[in-house]
Amino acid sequence: MLGKRRRLALLAEARFNPFEAKTAVGVLRYRPDQVAAVIDSTRAGRTAGECVGVGGAIPVVADIAAAAACGADSLAIGIAPQGGGLPDAWRAMVREALERGWDVLSGLHVFLADDPDLAGAAARHGVRILDLRRPPERRTVAAARAAELDALVVLTVGSDCNVGKMTAALELTQELSRRGTRAAFVATGQTGILIADHGVAVDAVVSDFAAGAIEDLVVEAGRKAEVVVVEGQGALHHPGYSGVTLSLLAGACPRALILCHAAGRDHIRTADGAAREIPIPRLSELKRAYELAAAWVQPAQVVGVALNTHDLDERSARAACEVTRHELGLPATDPVRFGAGPLAAAVLALKLKGRIHAPHA
Amino acid sequence: MLGKRRRLALLAEARFNPFEAKTAVGVLRYRPDQVAAVIDSTRAGRTAGECVGVGGAIPVVADIAAAAACGADSLAIGIAPQGGGLPDAWRAMVREALERGWDVLSGLHVFLADDPDLAGAAARHGVRILDLRRPPERRTVAAARAAELDALVVLTVGSDCNVGKMTAALELTQELSRRGTRAAFVATGQTGILIADHGVAVDAVVSDFAAGAIEDLVVEAGRKAEVVVVEGQGALHHPGYSGVTLSLLAGACPRALILCHAAGRDHIRTADGAAREIPIPRLSELKRAYELAAAWVQPAQVVGVALNTHDLDERSARAACEVTRHELGLPATDPVRFGAGPLAAAVLALKLKGRIHAPHA
Repeated sequence: MLGKRRRLALLAEARFNPFEAKTAVGVLRYRPDQVAAVIDSTRAGRTAGECVGVGGAIPVVADIAAAAACGADSLAIGIAPQGGGLPDAWRAMVREALERGWDVLSGLHVFLADDPDLAGAAARHGVRILDLRRPPERRTVAAARAAELDALVVLTVGSDCNVGKMTAALELTQELSRRGTRAAFVATGQTGILIADHGVAVDAVVSDFAAGAIEDLVVEAGRKAEVVVVEGQGALHHPGYSGVTLSLLAGACPRALILCHAAGRDHIRTADGAAREIPIPRLSELKRAYELAAAWVQPAQVVGVALNTHDLDERSARAACEVTRHELGLPATDPVRFGAGPLAAAVLALKLKGRIHAPHA
Repeated sequence: MLGKRRRLALLAEARFNPFEAKTAVGVLRYRPDQVAAVIDSTRAGRTAGECVGVGGAIPVVADIAAAAACGADSLAIGIAPQGGGLPDAWRAMVREALERGWDVLSGLHVFLADDPDLAGAAARHGVRILDLRRPPERRTVAAARAAELDALVVLTVGSDCNVGKMTAALELTQELSRRGTRAAFVATGQTGILIADHGVAVDAVVSDFAAGAIEDLVVEAGRKAEVVVVEGQGALHHPGYSGVTLSLLAGACPRALILCHAAGRDHIRTADGAAREIPIPRLSELKRAYELAAAWVQPAQVVGVALNTHDLDERSARAACEVTRHELGLPATDPVRFGAGPLAAAVLALKLKGRIHAPHA
């Protein structure tokens, strides 16, 4: 969705840390060449690498003017507030960017291009507002068409939101490509779309057509690729987002699943004001739940685990992978820290085996 | 959503039969006093009762002018084309209704009030276009808040679309009221909204907020009612709509489920161009699937089965209920044909028992 070569200023005001600035971190990890600066006045003067561990020497600056001084020519909103609206404090920054002649890229649920004030500013300055979450015009009701592809479809699924499903999918795609497999990454969220320049934010599609939008993307990708790796969203046990997750399963019709989990996390991160805590089940239970849910339309099996060990030291991270391998009898790795090799090998092994059958309920 | 007392003309052109005119049939069954005529030029001259078995002597007429002669003062679109668009042939009829000074009520996915041509006609004639599927302004991410209600929440779930989930919910609500229980019906689709004058079409809500919209409705209803009966949508095994179904389960946090099935149907009705047929599992498997999926957020149990025996004669219908009772060890009835008594009794029995526990996975 970058659309052209850009020098992005990534807006992450007051929240440029690894936990809250998911979009910024994703772009910094996979498209650092397109980032000129990060905006967070509370961390100005540091580097991206110091704040979030990726992006190296890319500077963190206080405001739009300072980002311009770093050569920025576009603004991308790099944090995603729950609820998806535009905080008042950001509106002035977005307007200032437009007035400088910058395009603005936004992954908010609220479409900035539909805001008369901002749309007017964009028109006056001859620039564009790109709403990454804008759903496709086409309205497809999914009908398991992706199940008929020759390509092997892989979906990353998870124990919660923000555990590394996009990262696992990107690392797996890159590793498959390195091994000579024609692999395609299908982006299903705003960050993935920024990185891949293509995709649909499934969480912003009207429910009736959510699975259909994914089906369209997967069928399109499957025409050229041998393996289609679909970025997962949400979690079956998440009270807010489980419908999105099931739409992905039903629309993508994967045969292989990669189970993603943040090592050490034991409760689902629910919305503010949640009435109760929802525990994350054991990984073996999660595996079973995803395989049962997949089989409602197209049987699939979990072929590996991607552990996000960001919070652990190296030794504990290795131990966590080892414990998981032992518990599930499946390859387990932190694809960022230790590489996606074991996951790629498992996917390619399944590809050789052919179709699989429904689990016993 | 009728908003006031109306004399509706129900548009069901060329499709006024029990299988395709779902919205028209629902309104005729539960709000016949508000219907002046049904428009279907291919069946003009017959009565509603002759065509769909409900609505008695309400006439079927050829066009808007004939409906006006029957006293109609509003047009309601009574069929829901898959994909949700406005067929060209209907546009002229909608415009004609507006020009006669009628309000137009539409459950299409495409919002007629956003169509400049139709909105202009409505403005010129001082009438309103009511889009029943328009989602609420408020964007809530569900967080299992409905699980904390004192009220018992019941959700109707099904083996497929169009098996009688709305009807079962309405009949159950009426039967509970008859028995002196304060019961509230929560409408989640355009037909239910027409009948109940309130609700949210969950299938038209952006995926991230679908469960949240239901949570808001259920929490609101639970403040006044002892039993909240939520209209289900879709099916967990439906490739197009399973995400909607799971959003309902997660948002409503029911403790009781009524499993709905059309007797004799063995395959899911998928979209045109579906690549494969998807068999409907045995009812015992469906029961297990719904209970497992519910338990991801809030444990629930299937307490009864609503069989739609429309296609069977009386004796076969009774036999089908008997077989189901035996197979599942649960009350089974066709709530339209034989009444919702057994379902109401099962719900009230659960209400006395209190909270239940997760099924063993």
